[in-house]
Amino acid sequence: MMEEKLYRSFDERPTNPKELIKWKEENKARKRKWREEKLLKQLKRQKAAETVAMETENRKLKEEKQQKTQGRPYTISIALPGSILDNAQSPELRTYLAGQIARAAVVFNIDEIVVFDESGSTEKTTEGEFKGVGKHGQGNVQLARILQYLECPQYLRKSFFPQHKDLQYAGVLNPLDCPHHMRAQDEAVYREGVVLNKPPREGRGSFVNIGLTKDVQIDKHLKAGVRVTVKIDPATTDRKNMRGTVVSPSEPRTQAGLYWGYTVRLAGSLGAVFTESPYPETYDLTIGTSERGTDLDEFSLEDADFKHGLVVFGGVKGLEASLESDEQLGVEDPSLLFQHYLNTCPQQGSRTIRTEEAILITMAGLRPKLFSKRRQNPES
Amino acid sequence: MMEEKLYRSFDERPTNPKELIKWKEENKARKRKWREEKLLKQLKRQKAAETVAMETENRKLKEEKQQKTQGRPYTISIALPGSILDNAQSPELRTYLAGQIARAAVVFNIDEIVVFDESGSTEKTTEGEFKGVGKHGQGNVQLARILQYLECPQYLRKSFFPQHKDLQYAGVLNPLDCPHHMRAQDEAVYREGVVLNKPPREGRGSFVNIGLTKDVQIDKHLKAGVRVTVKIDPATTDRKNMRGTVVSPSEPRTQAGLYWGYTVRLAGSLGAVFTESPYPETYDLTIGTSERGTDLDEFSLEDADFKHGLVVFGGVKGLEASLESDEQLGVEDPSLLFQHYLNTCPQQGSRTIRTEEAILITMAGLRPKLFSKRRQNPES
Repeated sequence: MMEEKLYRSFDERPTNPKELIKWKEENKARKRKWREEKLLKQLKRQKAAETVAMETENRKLKEEKQQKTQGRPYTISIALPGSILDNAQSPELRTYLAGQIARAAVVFNIDEIVVFDESGSTEKTTEGEFKGVGKHGQGNVQLARILQYLECPQYLRKSFFPQHKDLQYAGVLNPLDCPHHMRAQDEAVYREGVVLNKPPREGRGSFVNIGLTKDVQIDKHLKAGVRVTVKIDPATTDRKNMRGTVVSPSEPRTQAGLYWGYTVRLAGSLGAVFTESPYPETYDLTIGTSERGTDLDEFSLEDADFKHGLVVFGGVKGLEASLESDEQLGVEDPSLLFQHYLNTCPQQGSRTIRTEEAILITMAGLRPKLFSKRRQNPES
Repeated sequence: MMEEKLYRSFDERPTNPKELIKWKEENKARKRKWREEKLLKQLKRQKAAETVAMETENRKLKEEKQQKTQGRPYTISIALPGSILDNAQSPELRTYLAGQIARAAVVFNIDEIVVFDESGSTEKTTEGEFKGVGKHGQGNVQLARILQYLECPQYLRKSFFPQHKDLQYAGVLNPLDCPHHMRAQDEAVYREGVVLNKPPREGRGSFVNIGLTKDVQIDKHLKAGVRVTVKIDPATTDRKNMRGTVVSPSEPRTQAGLYWGYTVRLAGSLGAVFTESPYPETYDLTIGTSERGTDLDEFSLEDADFKHGLVVFGGVKGLEASLESDEQLGVEDPSLLFQHYLNTCPQQGSRTIRTEEAILITMAGLRPKLFSKRRQNPES
């Protein structure tokens, strides 16, 4: 626009010298004005660019900070058959083996342990011959119970785990020492607790035992005996009446990147591990482990994102045997069940790898492949 | 050359018609000859190229075969304190723990397990006050004994392991199921055996029990009761008199790439792990493991070659504590002792990692970094 005007003015140049001088002066002024305007525009553009850059930078920093404090958006589940307990040689070793599974899970921040039945006793009907009450499935329930017992913070165990035969040898279990297994002197934003049978004043929230000498009063009125995750109001920690808010048990993970233990699920068959997922989106990364799988070294997730990962382990006879007993799935090749079917211990120096060993070996091998690009720094 | 001659001939063309016809015929013959020679040359060149390609291919195949059969030129040792047994809660669990160490070692083809004393009772002099006979060191010897017991093929155990209190609960041990733990029906080039007290004829070699119904006669006369590795002469396997040669226990590894179990060594201190190496070249790759080490993900060996790798694990209180008790080393920072000081389980979800867990986790994490470029395919 400005340039057009500038050129047009030459055609309007007057012939009279006096008028020409005036015209030239006017023209000069016009040019000066044009230059100033151009400069102003440039400055404006520059400033806008700077603002955008700054905003981008700020957004980036904010995102980074958010990511750091928000913690981990994804979950990892493992699944294994409870029948592995039947291979132990004494009740003490049976218990110890269950403890090894729990330890392996927490070392690698596993969020869910699925214990599936590979005995094939998944009939949903009572028809047919009566075969007697077998021992099948006992391993599943005992494994699940010991896993739950170990996951529970010590100060809550007497509330949730009354004496039970399955826990008779709990004395041999090694502690999990997870971030949510707080000691009384630990300072923490989140704590696991049990709602107490101690009536609060009308309109006020329940009292919760969170492993401290004083109880915390929460924002809701809940039934006594319920296990809750409490976010403590830091301003009230030194007060006589400590206050807190009940939050989802996943909040410490999603908001603060803290490992907050695992949930335990019993599945009636290998197929039910997939179909009864507690996540509405189900599992979007599924890995099966087998000596007959693809070499782990050839596996790469690249930049693929996942929300709910699932790693499935076989029992004494491998996943092939677990699959055989699942008549509903109708698949014989276990590699078809999983997105990835991996041999996580190539060149193994023993003909067999025990399930409790396989969890540690597999998760140690998968860790850099699953998490290296999405590293979090949980504040523990 | 041929082309030059061809062109020159035109200038020599005779003018006389008869001579010209003769000349032309001669010329035709010359051209034919030239073409034939050209074709021959081409064929020769082609054949030469084919030969080179074939030779290259053959050399490649030979190299591949050699690599496959030559097997593994390097060794991996692990070292850990025997004091970890003192943390077990019962004699059965003490034994079971030792078995876990053995299993972790064989799964990752470990060639040597060094059990070191971290109690500090490494004084080489009897001077000073008498402190009474402590229990210190008992864990070391028991761990070493159970490791040796498990490594020994089942059919040789009664020859080498008389009843001993340390082995009282050996019944709880899980089998190692190594390649050299042969069953009678297994076909094998190498077998572990014990020299029998069965006098051979004058000038002939001793008889050796290698776990078969018939004994093998070896090339040397050896003292009865000695454990030997025998290379069986395949031509004699079906004969009444099976023959074999005594070879080094490392030959199955170096020649055939077979994992052939581990040796066990007791070290009086952490320092002695290094100084009393059984390899004349000592260890040329040393790795220490600690929560306070460098992130494993940042570790790379690149193409660096090693002959004897050593991975050292701490006990209940870590390598820092093991070092403190070693007064002779005079170092306080354990990272100075090792070429690499690594945290092999970043973001661990438990405050502690037990030594038996650390071996599996560490070796699974190191495996692709140490061996991926020098992969062997042991024929197992």
